[in-house]
Amino acid sequence: MTRKECVRRILGEFNAQPQHDSATAWAPANIALCKYWGKRNSELYLPQTSSLSVSLGDLGTQTTLSIASDCDMVVLNGHKVEPENAFARRLSAYLDLFRGDKPIFFHIDTANTVPTAAGLASSASGFAALVLALQSLYGWSLDGCHLSILARLGSGSACRSIYHGFVEWQAGIADDGFDSYAEPLPETWPDLRVGILTLSTAEKPIGSRQAMQHTLETSTLYRAWPQQVESDLPLLRRAIAERDLHLLGQTAENNALAMHATLLAARPAILYWLPESVQSIRTIHDLRKQGAAVYLTMDAGPNVKLLFEKNDVECIRERFPKVAIVSPFA
Amino acid sequence: MTRKECVRRILGEFNAQPQHDSATAWAPANIALCKYWGKRNSELYLPQTSSLSVSLGDLGTQTTLSIASDCDMVVLNGHKVEPENAFARRLSAYLDLFRGDKPIFFHIDTANTVPTAAGLASSASGFAALVLALQSLYGWSLDGCHLSILARLGSGSACRSIYHGFVEWQAGIADDGFDSYAEPLPETWPDLRVGILTLSTAEKPIGSRQAMQHTLETSTLYRAWPQQVESDLPLLRRAIAERDLHLLGQTAENNALAMHATLLAARPAILYWLPESVQSIRTIHDLRKQGAAVYLTMDAGPNVKLLFEKNDVECIRERFPKVAIVSPFA
Repeated sequence: MTRKECVRRILGEFNAQPQHDSATAWAPANIALCKYWGKRNSELYLPQTSSLSVSLGDLGTQTTLSIASDCDMVVLNGHKVEPENAFARRLSAYLDLFRGDKPIFFHIDTANTVPTAAGLASSASGFAALVLALQSLYGWSLDGCHLSILARLGSGSACRSIYHGFVEWQAGIADDGFDSYAEPLPETWPDLRVGILTLSTAEKPIGSRQAMQHTLETSTLYRAWPQQVESDLPLLRRAIAERDLHLLGQTAENNALAMHATLLAARPAILYWLPESVQSIRTIHDLRKQGAAVYLTMDAGPNVKLLFEKNDVECIRERFPKVAIVSPFA
Repeated sequence: MTRKECVRRILGEFNAQPQHDSATAWAPANIALCKYWGKRNSELYLPQTSSLSVSLGDLGTQTTLSIASDCDMVVLNGHKVEPENAFARRLSAYLDLFRGDKPIFFHIDTANTVPTAAGLASSASGFAALVLALQSLYGWSLDGCHLSILARLGSGSACRSIYHGFVEWQAGIADDGFDSYAEPLPETWPDLRVGILTLSTAEKPIGSRQAMQHTLETSTLYRAWPQQVESDLPLLRRAIAERDLHLLGQTAENNALAMHATLLAARPAILYWLPESVQSIRTIHDLRKQGAAVYLTMDAGPNVKLLFEKNDVECIRERFPKVAIVSPFA
C-alpha cells in the first residue's frame, strides 16, 4: 500500500474541495519518554516498536494554509523557502497526497517556537499542525485516530503531536498501518516540568531518518532494542499512573541513553554528542547524587532535556541558567 | 570448582617449595581489539565471549617476588602499600592460592610503566607478570596454556598478557575453565602503532569488574553483545592476516563503542566518558574524513587509544601532541 492509497482510504467519504480560502492550526512539539527508533516500513512510517511521549505545552508549530494560484510556496519562521530546498520539497511531496485530480496549490506559512532541525522534533509538530490545518481548510471531520495516521505519513512522531499531554503510539502489526496511530493517555501531571538545554542549534551532521535506518541496518546492539521498549513501556505507564517521578525519570533516561547506545554501536558510529552533552549529563548525575530529582532524555541530536517537578525549578535554574522550562500540563 | 582447586590441578605434579629466594618477571599490557566484557563465572573469571588483543610492546609490569618472613609486603611503583589497601589484599588473596600447606609469605615489588587504574589494564600485565615470577621462583615448567589459566584466575584479561603480539582468548565452554585460555596468533605487523591519549589518570568512579557485572545484569542491549563479538572476531582475524588497517580499525572501533554502548544502556547508566573523550573521538573522525587512516578503541574508562600505521605517525603527533606511541612489534 502507498501513502496515497492510505490517504484515499481515509478521505474517500469527504469532499475533495477546500471549504475555505485559508485555515490556521497549531500543534505541540513532543518529547518521547520511550523513543520511536526504527521503521518496519519506510514508505508508511510504520515503526518497529510502540513509543510514548509528552507534548510540550506551548512549544510547537503554527501553520496557516491558504489556496495559492500556480505553485506551492513555503514560508518558514517568516522567511520564504526556495522551492528546491529539501524542507519545501518534503512539504510539497506530502501535500501531493491531498491534491486529488484537479491541480491545486498551497501557500504554507509555518512558524516554530522550537529551533528547526536541532533535535527538538519540529517535524513532529510541523506535520501535525499541517494535518490539522488541512482538516480545517477542507472541512473534514476526521477523528483523532485518522488525523494521527495522516500525520504519521508526514513524519512518524508527528502522529503523537496531534494530542496534548501523555501520548502513546501503538506500533500496530497491519501492513497497511491502519492500526498504527497515537492515542492520548487520560492522566495529567500538573507539577511535571521539562527543561530544554539547547547546546547546539547547528544542523545535525545526519538527520534522524537516515540515522535510524543506518542504525537498524548496521548496529548489532539494535537487535535488543525491541526488548528495551517492551520493558520500558509498562514502567512508564505505571510511573504516569502513580506520578512517580523517579520511575518516570529513570526509565526515560535509560531509554534515551539506550537509543544513543544503538547509534554508537552502528558501523560506522553516529555520535550526536558534543563535549557539552557529556558535561550536562555529568552535571545532572551530580545533582541527583546531591538529592535533586532530575533526569534526562535526549533525541537524535546533541541537546539534553531535563525531567523534574515544580519544586526543583530553582535548583535547576541555578545549575543551568540558560534552561528553557516547559510545563506540559499548566 | 574453586580457584584453589584449579591451581592444585595445574600444579599437582610440581614441587611445592620455592627453588629460589627471589625471581623477577615482566609482562606486557594489552589492549583488546575485541573486548572481554562480561563473565559467565565470576569465581573463575570465565568470560561470556572470546576476545582478541594486541600486547603493548614495552608498556607493562615488572614484578620481583621474594620470600618474606612473616607477612606479605607489597611495593607498588616504589611505594609501600598498606596491607589493608584493596590492591594489597587482592594480591595476597591471589597468592593464597599458591601457599600450599606450610605458611609462606612474599615480598612483591611491582612497577607499572602504565598508569595504575586509569583504564590501561595494569591488572592484566600485573597478574601475568606475577604468574611468570611465580613460575621462575618455584621453578615450574608450565606451558603457556597453564600459565594463561593461572593468570586468568587473577584477572580475566591477564590471561592474554602472557604473550606478545596478537593474542586470542577462547571463551571455552567447560565449567572448570580448562578450555578458557589465551593463545598467540602467528602474525606480526611491524608498522602497526598504538597511540595512547591519557585524558585522565584519576581513579575511575567504578572499576571495570563491577561495571561489567552491573552491565550484564541491567543493560538490555547487553543481550546482543555475544552477537557483536561473533561477527567481530572473524573480521579481526582476517584484518590481521591481511594487514588490513581499515578493517582492523573499523572493527576494533565498532567493538569498543559497542562495549561503551552497553554501559550507557545499563540502569543506571555508567558513563566513563569525559567531555575530552568526545572531543578526541570527534577529532579522530575528522582526521579520517581528511584521509588519515586512524581508528580508536577505548577500555572501561575515559581514555582513548589510537590505531594507525607508521606512515601516519607525524600526522597523529601534530594533532595529538601529548600522545604516547607504542610499537607492538618493533
